[in-house]
Amino acid sequence: MTPASSLLLTDLYQFTMLQAYLDRGMTDTAVFEFYSRRLPEHRCFLLAAGLESALEFLESARFTAEEVDWLASTGRFNRRFLDYVAEFRFSGEVHAMQEGTVFFPDEPVLRITAPLPEAQLVETRLINLLQYQILVASKAARSVLAAPGKLLVEFGLRRAHGAEAGLLAARSAYLAGFAGSSNVLAEQRYGIPSFGTMAHSFILAHHDEEQAFADFALSLPHNVTFLIDTYDTEAGAEKVVHLAPRLKEQGVTIRSVRLDSGDLADHARKVRRILDHGGLTEVGIFASGDLDEYALQELASAPIGGFGIGTRLTTCADQPYLNCAYKLQEYAGLPRRKRSEGKATWPGRKQVYRTPEKDVLTLESDPQPGTPLLERVMADGQRLRPAPDLDTTLRAHAAAQLAALPQALRRLEPGAVYEVEIAPALQQLADRLDAADS
Amino acid sequence: MTPASSLLLTDLYQFTMLQAYLDRGMTDTAVFEFYSRRLPEHRCFLLAAGLESALEFLESARFTAEEVDWLASTGRFNRRFLDYVAEFRFSGEVHAMQEGTVFFPDEPVLRITAPLPEAQLVETRLINLLQYQILVASKAARSVLAAPGKLLVEFGLRRAHGAEAGLLAARSAYLAGFAGSSNVLAEQRYGIPSFGTMAHSFILAHHDEEQAFADFALSLPHNVTFLIDTYDTEAGAEKVVHLAPRLKEQGVTIRSVRLDSGDLADHARKVRRILDHGGLTEVGIFASGDLDEYALQELASAPIGGFGIGTRLTTCADQPYLNCAYKLQEYAGLPRRKRSEGKATWPGRKQVYRTPEKDVLTLESDPQPGTPLLERVMADGQRLRPAPDLDTTLRAHAAAQLAALPQALRRLEPGAVYEVEIAPALQQLADRLDAADS
Repeated sequence: MTPASSLLLTDLYQFTMLQAYLDRGMTDTAVFEFYSRRLPEHRCFLLAAGLESALEFLESARFTAEEVDWLASTGRFNRRFLDYVAEFRFSGEVHAMQEGTVFFPDEPVLRITAPLPEAQLVETRLINLLQYQILVASKAARSVLAAPGKLLVEFGLRRAHGAEAGLLAARSAYLAGFAGSSNVLAEQRYGIPSFGTMAHSFILAHHDEEQAFADFALSLPHNVTFLIDTYDTEAGAEKVVHLAPRLKEQGVTIRSVRLDSGDLADHARKVRRILDHGGLTEVGIFASGDLDEYALQELASAPIGGFGIGTRLTTCADQPYLNCAYKLQEYAGLPRRKRSEGKATWPGRKQVYRTPEKDVLTLESDPQPGTPLLERVMADGQRLRPAPDLDTTLRAHAAAQLAALPQALRRLEPGAVYEVEIAPALQQLADRLDAADS
Repeated sequence: MTPASSLLLTDLYQFTMLQAYLDRGMTDTAVFEFYSRRLPEHRCFLLAAGLESALEFLESARFTAEEVDWLASTGRFNRRFLDYVAEFRFSGEVHAMQEGTVFFPDEPVLRITAPLPEAQLVETRLINLLQYQILVASKAARSVLAAPGKLLVEFGLRRAHGAEAGLLAARSAYLAGFAGSSNVLAEQRYGIPSFGTMAHSFILAHHDEEQAFADFALSLPHNVTFLIDTYDTEAGAEKVVHLAPRLKEQGVTIRSVRLDSGDLADHARKVRRILDHGGLTEVGIFASGDLDEYALQELASAPIGGFGIGTRLTTCADQPYLNCAYKLQEYAGLPRRKRSEGKATWPGRKQVYRTPEKDVLTLESDPQPGTPLLERVMADGQRLRPAPDLDTTLRAHAAAQLAALPQALRRLEPGAVYEVEIAPALQQLADRLDAADS
């Protein structure tokens, strides 16, 4: 078993609570919602992501016989608990926003309706899947908005936090509008176009930089990109110019040169002149190295056609976590409200209605004008539709959502606030629960 | 196949370079070293971690038949490449620092000596595994140093970046001196003690907080921890006092109460008075909620015996990536040196010697006084020793390393610098390579 597919990948308290629920017969229907409590400091909006992986998790959630035996061997759990986990299936409903939907704080992205023990047990992994993909998609969207018309490639696998983060980052960035990723598994698994050049080690393994370029090009003659900064960037560009006629004779098409260090704008201008002067006007410039959306904005006027965005994106460096929660909103037909300091929740089963001017957050039972953002995507533990196509459906949806954003929210600078109105029905419910409890 | 075990989880350029190396017959021995270029802003030292998972990766690295077929189907690669990957095994040597070793910038943590195509192909995943575990272990060590004698539990699975990060974070924190983790898979996989309490949803699912406490305690009567901040922290503590005699009669031992919101120091003092006044002097206070090493330092005088450290640790929030590299240092018997701006490397096969005053970084062929930190742990692609015991060997080693740190480096505030001397032999080699190339 791998971490991603084991139901033991959870917090111990999910199991201790499960035993208590089973012992007390607390198996009525519970409603949990996943949402963000507030926007990260440098964000004006968030982009929904991770739903398909969450549904896959719910559909396939099982304990293996070995895992049940191991749980028994810890001596912590009783027979009722062990029988339950041995037969565990998720049998509930899921309402969710489609991946690629723009959303705001307090708006539920996903709602689980299921017997309390089931809805509780899946909490940790659902948050684990949703949070990270939302973080990456939301940050990648900012690069897309900051660099219109540029080729953006996700390059961050090596510094992503583990294997799964590397894979999910490639998908989340692509969802948000990147052209692809360096990650080959993301191509095999999701059909995401993969891009690649060469490493400095390739140059260093040769005695001569120009020879390294030639070796590489003759081995992979289509759409070659040369990394030219190992020793001296402009000298590297000169070598490409020198080599180009010979390579052309041998059927090589040079697509671009890559810069990976130093002042990228300055090098790009110098390299552009060298390439143009050498007749290589068709050869583009691709840049990488500690880039993020702010760097892209600064490089907007540089003659660079494409960017590799790595570490800062896959680690969500300026905001590596989301203030988000998966909270019980209703149990056994009654709405619930947590009131911990700074962490109060909006109770009940909720829906979000979007109009051109604002969103309205209200109870599911209180329809409003506008488009409802949550739809039912799973019932009886089974998906109600096949997974939407990543390209034609989800990516297109994300692009439309970003295009529809008010101009003030499209800027990198935070401060613009989109209105999320709390409908009277929801406010009244919250007030009523507070009054009843106090 | 899962992301963690697929060799397709790599950057496309590893494959394009591989094809070029094979086409040109560049299969001589290469030496790559993994190291950090500089310390993160808020760190005085780093802690080595991830070696055992790296060795496991190297020993088991294979392409499946399906993966080879898929690579063929992309049309990118030639027959020589496809034959090579079909038979791929890592056959090289590994020298490395033991997990738990304190290290500093420029010092290699791991060295690979293998035919160039093999040493190159494993780059991306090696960095992916080592970087994250080093980040978490190094940050966790700061909490251990900031809160001597306190029970520290890793609580961050839900906001870790994906499944593997959640699992590796638990292990890295434990290596650095944490008492355990909330992560059940970490207990099953690595024997790491798991800890857990209850969620707010457990309280909210009941009509009455005191009833929720009773239900939980009677279901799991040993070492119970009550979460008391769902409505009003001090009122929650009073309920525990009220409930305690009845629970004691029924064989329940109350271990602690947990605070998760508000001013933790202030609540802890009030709750301590309530518990003591109610005769529960043996019941401890456990705290959680946005904690990190700085919060622990501030809470040092509060009557809190244990802490759950979650999101900020598992996301390495103040420093989510390491400026680190895996660089070619020698090929076909000749040392290599990259000179890209700001990214120059120390060439050759290196060793680090530690003395009480300083470390000396030099060539392997240039022995120095002190303890060499790199040892050979793999040859011919096979481990030279069984995996060391996490408790008795690796954790003990990390504790000894932290205990031996100079006092100035044990503080949270950065600024103290440990001397890493470049030996004359290494400096001369670098100068010689620069002179030869220019």
